[in-house]
Amino acid sequence: MSDQLEQALEAAFAEATRRYQGRGFQRRVGFGNRPALISVDLANAWTRAGNAFACEHMDDRIIPAMQALLEGFRRYHLPVVHVTTCYEITDRNNINTDMGLWHKKIPVETVNQADSQAWAIDSRIAPIEGELTLIKKRASAFHGTYLGGYLRSAGVDTILVTGVTASACVRETICDGIADGFHTIAVKEAIGDRIPGAVLWNLFDIDAKFADVETVETCLAYLDRVGRTQKAEQPVVA
Amino acid sequence: MSDQLEQALEAAFAEATRRYQGRGFQRRVGFGNRPALISVDLANAWTRAGNAFACEHMDDRIIPAMQALLEGFRRYHLPVVHVTTCYEITDRNNINTDMGLWHKKIPVETVNQADSQAWAIDSRIAPIEGELTLIKKRASAFHGTYLGGYLRSAGVDTILVTGVTASACVRETICDGIADGFHTIAVKEAIGDRIPGAVLWNLFDIDAKFADVETVETCLAYLDRVGRTQKAEQPVVA
Amino acid sequence: MSDQLEQALEAAFAEATRRYQGRGFQRRVGFGNRPALISVDLANAWTRAGNAFACEHMDDRIIPAMQALLEGFRRYHLPVVHVTTCYEITDRNNINTDMGLWHKKIPVETVNQADSQAWAIDSRIAPIEGELTLIKKRASAFHGTYLGGYLRSAGVDTILVTGVTASACVRETICDGIADGFHTIAVKEAIGDRIPGAVLWNLFDIDAKFADVETVETCLAYLDRVGRTQKAEQPVVA
Amino acid sequence: MSDQLEQALEAAFAEATRRYQGRGFQRRVGFGNRPALISVDLANAWTRAGNAFACEHMDDRIIPAMQALLEGFRRYHLPVVHVTTCYEITDRNNINTDMGLWHKKIPVETVNQADSQAWAIDSRIAPIEGELTLIKKRASAFHGTYLGGYLRSAGVDTILVTGVTASACVRETICDGIADGFHTIAVKEAIGDRIPGAVLWNLFDIDAKFADVETVETCLAYLDRVGRTQKAEQPVVA
Repeated sequence: MSDQLEQALEAAFAEATRRYQGRGFQRRVGFGNRPALISVDLANAWTRAGNAFACEHMDDRIIPAMQALLEGFRRYHLPVVHVTTCYEITDRNNINTDMGLWHKKIPVETVNQADSQAWAIDSRIAPIEGELTLIKKRASAFHGTYLGGYLRSAGVDTILVTGVTASACVRETICDGIADGFHTIAVKEAIGDRIPGAVLWNLFDIDAKFADVETVETCLAYLDRVGRTQKAEQPVVA
Repeated sequence: MSDQLEQALEAAFAEATRRYQGRGFQRRVGFGNRPALISVDLANAWTRAGNAFACEHMDDRIIPAMQALLEGFRRYHLPVVHVTTCYEITDRNNINTDMGLWHKKIPVETVNQADSQAWAIDSRIAPIEGELTLIKKRASAFHGTYLGGYLRSAGVDTILVTGVTASACVRETICDGIADGFHTIAVKEAIGDRIPGAVLWNLFDIDAKFADVETVETCLAYLDRVGRTQKAEQPVVA
Repeated sequence: MSDQLEQALEAAFAEATRRYQGRGFQRRVGFGNRPALISVDLANAWTRAGNAFACEHMDDRIIPAMQALLEGFRRYHLPVVHVTTCYEITDRNNINTDMGLWHKKIPVETVNQADSQAWAIDSRIAPIEGELTLIKKRASAFHGTYLGGYLRSAGVDTILVTGVTASACVRETICDGIADGFHTIAVKEAIGDRIPGAVLWNLFDIDAKFADVETVETCLAYLDRVGRTQKAEQPVVA
Repeated sequence: MSDQLEQALEAAFAEATRRYQGRGFQRRVGFGNRPALISVDLANAWTRAGNAFACEHMDDRIIPAMQALLEGFRRYHLPVVHVTTCYEITDRNNINTDMGLWHKKIPVETVNQADSQAWAIDSRIAPIEGELTLIKKRASAFHGTYLGGYLRSAGVDTILVTGVTASACVRETICDGIADGFHTIAVKEAIGDRIPGAVLWNLFDIDAKFADVETVETCLAYLDRVGRTQKAEQPVVA
């Protein structure tokens, strides 16, 4: 990202913050009592170079941030959902395709379900036993999936969202998350994109209206706080 | 089913029909212009004897009815969705299971995703290329799935629903179908269950309030009528 | 309901129970830790004689049961949602109607939003301040409404469902309830219908697969148990 | 908006466009055959100065654009949905509020359902008979509402989205629109926000991935093309 863009955006955010604060935006939703990690599209077609969907800062920032988060969630046996995207019918001329209309905007025809390597979660952060892999067809991890009902039944009240991209699947997942009644946290270092500025302006909008943007460090400290309680507790019903 | 039960139900339905007709229930939703076939849970765990979910009248009625319907849909390249059910985590003690709370009512723990034989569509009516296999986690084929959005993008306005069971997944799919704005048809011979009377009373409720119950013969005649038009038409947008 | 029908159904249920028990159905979902009351369509068009939607056993059974339940929920400031149904456009020839396709099956054109008397909750169980009135357009109180997201944000894990009818709106609400991850309870005496047998066969299906059917007395005892805890607790987040 | 910001964003968009084009993004979804107008939050609390939610460019740009669009939709009796937002319980200390968790980020407590002036559609673009007013609780006009099912039953395959804000309710509505299978169009002059740059960066993201951004003029020409056909056609079902 150019210095000029970053400076211009920071100036715009400062002015927007002034307006937002005067009107009651940019409040804190806060962390709840039982979190799940929702990791969006950190599959090879997004994490590895050479794909249409490949994103930036995977190796130096996003994957290491995810590894730290996974360690925290696994330590306390908290739910982890690895979300990915693929399609059974990727022939763009077939009106019956499960891509719906989305291939008319973006190259979703590049992730065919039969090519499991493309949509498999990156091996550096691969699911372990007891963690779900959820295939979605649209941007939001909630849209057209069982995620909302699943999280409720698992007693989750808080979601930490990571992955790519800030301007599409991560943002949509976050907006649906708070809409569905979950304390929603965007984990700053673990979110990426593929064009200059998109992470900045999307996280700004998100923090103003939908979720708290927090660092990995803050999230790990929260996991330590809440995780210890989880282990001691048995789910007892009345 | 005992004669006594059948007679008692028919008498009840006659009285109910008298009341319903006087109040404007039991109307016809009718067929629309572009149908899809939604076949619910005709997978081995439901179609083959010896499973917790095994249903009655598979070989003598439901599978042959489905074969006739599939031939009709395939002749005109109309969309077919084969719906099945399975879970990644079937340990009932794991609160993080994708079974949600449903295992607390019925034995969903018997269909693990790793055991693909259990949830594979019955080979006598197996999907062919270009037909979708949709995995659901709950009763309705619409709940927590991409089905509604998919059907809209495929230009579908009518769904023919088949499969098992009348008292759960088929009924829920039908109720969601009309709720989502689709002309919804329950195909009489292609719907089953595993307890006496359940097909009768559920199809009665469905026909009164949610969908038209029609025979395979009526549905095939409809496909011939509407299918010919489909082939001639190209999807043109303004 | 005729004795013949009741006897025939009881015999069928006995046989079905034998099969279900052998296969792991009819389990108990149980009560959770924080309940909401979801009361479906107990509005004048359903509770008062002379309407197309009028149901039976309102005065002698359902309204008294609801009054007892409301007292329990109000004692502990637990959430109550009064669900009703109405439409802005009830001209059946207008394709743009918010009735969708449902008027093609049942007489929903009889509840126009402008006629608030028709869809107002029955005055004997009227909402008090702090209780929500939710307008739905379809059978399920969850379908096309904010109910699921609302309940999650309110920390609810259990829903007690009441109202009419057993064969449509109550059943659909219950099926969606457990699908969305809520411990779902059908309150026996507070559920009705308008045709003979429909309450019996629908509650049988529901108890086998979707929710526990419990008496008002059992539910009130539960509220006393769990309500006391609620009052003492402050919602604390990590 | 400062010249510096505009120039920096245009430079960033140029670079992003280069990348997107090389990878198959920024395609055209196109117009379909039957459109609806979805106008988001053009109610007094958003259109009139002095409210927490008040937006910019109402009088000089957005309201006139909406008036032109409404004339086009009304000429051909095409469906119009006026979306607005309000809440029954706006006490932020009440955990049972229908605001869910959203009041923890933005000042939704300022639009109480009892204050109908606040959430009424601006009188300059007020609904006429046959047009729906849809109350939502969250950002997207689809989330927790009957909009998706309604549009399907009305035979709609295309939505033109207008209103405020680009960074929240309009963007979420658009993302859900294409996800649900609708050809989705963002009408450029009829979309606003309340902070500098937000319209620019959100429309850029939207056009790249979710919807076509089109001018009022292009939309009106489309209405003339497609509207004439609508009038001649009777909805015939097979």
